[in-house]
Amino acid sequence: MSRGVITLITDFGTQDGYVGTMKGVMLKTSPEVRLVDITHEIPPRDVFRAGFVLRNSYRYFPDGSIHLVVVDPGVGSKRRAILVKTDNHFFIGPDNGVFTFVYESEEIRTVVQLTEKRYFLSDVSNTFHGRDIFAPVAAHLSLGVPLEDLGEPCNDVVRIDIPKPDIKRDGVKGILFYVDRFGNLVSNIREGLLAESSLRRRCKVFVGEEVIDGIKESYSEVNEGETLALFGSSGYLEISVRDRNARERLGLCKGTDVEVVY
Amino acid sequence: MSRGVITLITDFGTQDGYVGTMKGVMLKTSPEVRLVDITHEIPPRDVFRAGFVLRNSYRYFPDGSIHLVVVDPGVGSKRRAILVKTDNHFFIGPDNGVFTFVYESEEIRTVVQLTEKRYFLSDVSNTFHGRDIFAPVAAHLSLGVPLEDLGEPCNDVVRIDIPKPDIKRDGVKGILFYVDRFGNLVSNIREGLLAESSLRRRCKVFVGEEVIDGIKESYSEVNEGETLALFGSSGYLEISVRDRNARERLGLCKGTDVEVVY
Amino acid sequence: MSRGVITLITDFGTQDGYVGTMKGVMLKTSPEVRLVDITHEIPPRDVFRAGFVLRNSYRYFPDGSIHLVVVDPGVGSKRRAILVKTDNHFFIGPDNGVFTFVYESEEIRTVVQLTEKRYFLSDVSNTFHGRDIFAPVAAHLSLGVPLEDLGEPCNDVVRIDIPKPDIKRDGVKGILFYVDRFGNLVSNIREGLLAESSLRRRCKVFVGEEVIDGIKESYSEVNEGETLALFGSSGYLEISVRDRNARERLGLCKGTDVEVVY
Repeated sequence: MSRGVITLITDFGTQDGYVGTMKGVMLKTSPEVRLVDITHEIPPRDVFRAGFVLRNSYRYFPDGSIHLVVVDPGVGSKRRAILVKTDNHFFIGPDNGVFTFVYESEEIRTVVQLTEKRYFLSDVSNTFHGRDIFAPVAAHLSLGVPLEDLGEPCNDVVRIDIPKPDIKRDGVKGILFYVDRFGNLVSNIREGLLAESSLRRRCKVFVGEEVIDGIKESYSEVNEGETLALFGSSGYLEISVRDRNARERLGLCKGTDVEVVY
Repeated sequence: MSRGVITLITDFGTQDGYVGTMKGVMLKTSPEVRLVDITHEIPPRDVFRAGFVLRNSYRYFPDGSIHLVVVDPGVGSKRRAILVKTDNHFFIGPDNGVFTFVYESEEIRTVVQLTEKRYFLSDVSNTFHGRDIFAPVAAHLSLGVPLEDLGEPCNDVVRIDIPKPDIKRDGVKGILFYVDRFGNLVSNIREGLLAESSLRRRCKVFVGEEVIDGIKESYSEVNEGETLALFGSSGYLEISVRDRNARERLGLCKGTDVEVVY
Repeated sequence: MSRGVITLITDFGTQDGYVGTMKGVMLKTSPEVRLVDITHEIPPRDVFRAGFVLRNSYRYFPDGSIHLVVVDPGVGSKRRAILVKTDNHFFIGPDNGVFTFVYESEEIRTVVQLTEKRYFLSDVSNTFHGRDIFAPVAAHLSLGVPLEDLGEPCNDVVRIDIPKPDIKRDGVKGILFYVDRFGNLVSNIREGLLAESSLRRRCKVFVGEEVIDGIKESYSEVNEGETLALFGSSGYLEISVRDRNARERLGLCKGTDVEVVY
């Protein structure tokens, strides 16, 4: 299982060179590694959002990829730095729950608390562990350093609360929990919860003041400017407005209730 | 002709990880390919703008480069997915006119409608063909898959309307059709339309309420804060304000008339 | 000393494809080179900010890295294009002071004025030297072209004014000179100026209307929402608000006085 790819998710933005600095650190140790940005536009300290973006992207990468997530409000505190290994992927970041979506969908094979200072930069600041700890550890891992060399095994991990939908006799009740760049409103209702696909076309979806008829298969089933519900590319039910920004059009936001009624 | 580079233009932004996901898909199939971002900041669904940015950049890439453009308001509808080959470059994207500037400046050698499902991801969504169709096809193409294996030959392509300037006896009349990050106002008047270069220095340029004396060779010919017209790096006549943002200073926008009078 | 990495800092933003175009130019000449974005979000023409971001990042890159900085308000004027070599790094850009922080912390080994047109693109515009001069020269340099082939030796360079703090008998007086994405307010007071670390915990920091007790070691020493002073990852004294945006919370900006009093 090649470890030749490192992906990056941070809340560092792209204006200050923080991400470039981390890449410099990694290339110094591991000159051949492939570095791939997932996003650096996580709002500062938004661990949930980072976890969801990670969930939607990591499984598309080659087996053996190393996923570095640095959204780290607790930097410099006693929060642990961890490495998590699943069957096919490695995850490195602060132990603040940012990997909760991974824990829910994968078998965790190993968790290591990153304590081995010889894999850190020689000076470790209290404000930028992305540069001083996470990047150099990821680079060493990509070179094949055994997991057990990187620190101590770890038996528990921090999880964040991911809101779960209520399965009811006549439908499912969830909430909007993510809004994307296009203004698509993503709920926490996964496709699998609506087993019978014939129900999908006949149900009603209630969200805010909207009542939407049925769940569509594609945007092209409605007219421009019309509201629809469909399962989006992440596998969750989304509320969209065709060729428009649903968040702006409908005035809805994260946390709003969504109810599918058969 | 090596096919080792894939460039990317999308309207996906960088906040959701959609582009990173596409890169994961490509690296899984084609681990050595070079991935280069042109831009992901195309405003949602702005096919014209994507086409213009592509026009300004693709010819600077090595021969054999694959240019992937995913600005795709028709995703999930019956719009075709195509591969276009010119003498030196490959273009992959939806057949919605996004390659019109290429059609105008290059000989089209082959157009293939991408129908061969074995080069797609195994599950194809109706909302994210960038991930499920375009990225995997581009990756397979970079490995040397012959064009004819990717689908059916195609004889017609969709074109968008690109506004053409009027050549008059005493000048040229065009419009502003692109504004860049610096606020430079780019018109559709190409350098070649003003054949005699002596005319350039003596003409007048009318735009909005501005009357600009002559076409300059460089910003440094005017003072800070002064308005000028010059042929920009794309080869089109631009209206700029030295060391300032012309869009903000002059209050002009896309669609405004520009007239060069000798 | 391998020259296999080129880093990029520009004020080009990411919307127009200018940076992608430069990368195309470089890959055409130097197909194996590693291209790493530091930032393209330098505000238009902000030479100081580009210089500071460069200072914070370049030293983390492998020896032999080439750092390309294109923040170039004087493009098309008589300002020189230069290559600067220090012991371990190369810097390429306009001679407008953007490398001043480098000059202050490194021994300059060679400065070359880039005049050899055979290493430029064949058509050099007056508006985009990033594409036409700097990118192709960097690519040729990465292939091992000797410095003396690239142009004429150069004895003087342009420097910008970097505000220096005043060392006083009972403290240090400086100013805020950079604000990062998180709203952290970075001053020009370096860690070394406060020699005795026992003084740090007992001093008072005055900034705007704030009086801050002591310099902390990490954010976790104060409560959420509380203001603190600490030495940040760049080695300069920063004013922060834990888990908040200090710029917004305190209403302070670049240029504000900061005073440390023992």
